[in-house]
Amino acid sequence: MIIGIDIGGTSSKIGLVDQGRVIATKRIITTGHADEFAFADALAESVRELITENGQPATAIGIGAPNANQLTGIIEMAPNLPWKNDVPLAKMVEERTGIRSVLGNDANAAALGEWRYGAGQGLKDLLLVTLGTGVGSGFIVNGQLVLGSAGNAGELGHMTIVIDGRVCTCDRKGCLEAYVSIRGLRQTYLELDGDPEVLKGEGVHCIAVAAAAGDAAALQTFRHAARWLGVGLANAVAVTGPARVVLFGGISRSGDLLMLPLQERFQELLLNIYHGRVDLVTSALPDDDAAILGAAALTTM
Amino acid sequence: MIIGIDIGGTSSKIGLVDQGRVIATKRIITTGHADEFAFADALAESVRELITENGQPATAIGIGAPNANQLTGIIEMAPNLPWKNDVPLAKMVEERTGIRSVLGNDANAAALGEWRYGAGQGLKDLLLVTLGTGVGSGFIVNGQLVLGSAGNAGELGHMTIVIDGRVCTCDRKGCLEAYVSIRGLRQTYLELDGDPEVLKGEGVHCIAVAAAAGDAAALQTFRHAARWLGVGLANAVAVTGPARVVLFGGISRSGDLLMLPLQERFQELLLNIYHGRVDLVTSALPDDDAAILGAAALTTM
Repeated sequence: MIIGIDIGGTSSKIGLVDQGRVIATKRIITTGHADEFAFADALAESVRELITENGQPATAIGIGAPNANQLTGIIEMAPNLPWKNDVPLAKMVEERTGIRSVLGNDANAAALGEWRYGAGQGLKDLLLVTLGTGVGSGFIVNGQLVLGSAGNAGELGHMTIVIDGRVCTCDRKGCLEAYVSIRGLRQTYLELDGDPEVLKGEGVHCIAVAAAAGDAAALQTFRHAARWLGVGLANAVAVTGPARVVLFGGISRSGDLLMLPLQERFQELLLNIYHGRVDLVTSALPDDDAAILGAAALTTM
Repeated sequence: MIIGIDIGGTSSKIGLVDQGRVIATKRIITTGHADEFAFADALAESVRELITENGQPATAIGIGAPNANQLTGIIEMAPNLPWKNDVPLAKMVEERTGIRSVLGNDANAAALGEWRYGAGQGLKDLLLVTLGTGVGSGFIVNGQLVLGSAGNAGELGHMTIVIDGRVCTCDRKGCLEAYVSIRGLRQTYLELDGDPEVLKGEGVHCIAVAAAAGDAAALQTFRHAARWLGVGLANAVAVTGPARVVLFGGISRSGDLLMLPLQERFQELLLNIYHGRVDLVTSALPDDDAAILGAAALTTM
């Protein structure tokens, strides 16, 4: 039995994982605690409850979080979490539970989850890209997760794809994330003279609904996103040569609206030596479980 | 004793390597042989001569070549070599010499050479970029050369850095190679209204000479190259997070003309989490030996 914890900007999920299946979960809020110590107390309490309620001891805890550095076990300056300082969450949870705890970047966790239990099973070289509030990535190379020399590799979302392009949340310009995150697609829709009323709806779903109703700017928004994302994915393939690219997260569930133009652009943009050697698919894991499974997979590295 | 062979478009060098030092070399032409079999015969003959003349048996042969696939041992459709078909050179040399032979991409060989014997010693994560007729790259990740699922990873030169930009030799548009290869810099110089007389000189050296004499277009050419290369390098760092980037090949020896603006652009373009965690240097190996040492290093993988 392994515990997988997925730390989100609003809430955090704690799950008990048995051989690749999530058998029980709890959820706590991420915001609203007095400080990071109170949050760690609440996490530890949920872990104890899960174990007690299911009558099974857990051998390890894996925690996936934004801006987490796996080499140090620290969440570093996360813009979307309540704590602006460095939070050594692996150590804090381990001290409170007595169970070995591993912290990793949420996109890396998703990559491991997909690799162990989902669309990446059996592959030596894999790329997973998360498309949501941000754009994250996890690279598996030669059967190992790429961490980089400082534990912070795999930031495909901050690859420059348009020199001097849109300003990104990282204060640099032209990042992939500025174009193919939720915020990026909404900005594109406005730049294409889309109807501001449509954007009163949530996330990217509202643009997808408009596209389905024939809104030309909405359709065009997905075609533009496909083009930018195609460049980013083809660029990543040219670096690590994966056998498969897996898309994960909210935007990846836009169906044919995104995937039809994306498959076309991706093939077009790939260097010829990769043709027929890499495919592009969406996640094979149920959404609610994927992040927990990925976090659990961090413990087996 | 290991034999290192560097296959170039015009000539090929064969060297005897002892503990990281090249102790004797031969050179044969690459073009002008009847076919690839006659070329392999000539290579094998040089290998035998080197061994006989130095009175030392060799345990392995490493061969670095453009468009070589290390997983298959085959040179695949190399545009700059005389043979347009697939050439299984590792097997051909091994059959003719009786010595275990390994073939690898020339940029990967250079990365291994720099890692074992040059500016990358002791690092777990390294990126080497060759700047010359083409732009090649070799990535070391977690102490291993990145080959990719099909043996052809590490094509940073064909990362798209300008969407719908210059046409590249690969028939795609906007590749890094179209901007920072010899051909790319010469094209930039012309686009900046440089003096066509200057380009009657060789390679990029003629532009460097003009820059040293105060030619504004020539100076600007290097500044533009620094900007495009800065984008490509920062993008690569965001994928694999190396501790060091090493530049290799003719253009990298342009000194401050390139390196001063490049260091500035590179730092500016790096995502903040990599600041202070990655440096950018030029090769520490003597030019004539680097390719042979790299090829020799292929045998120790």
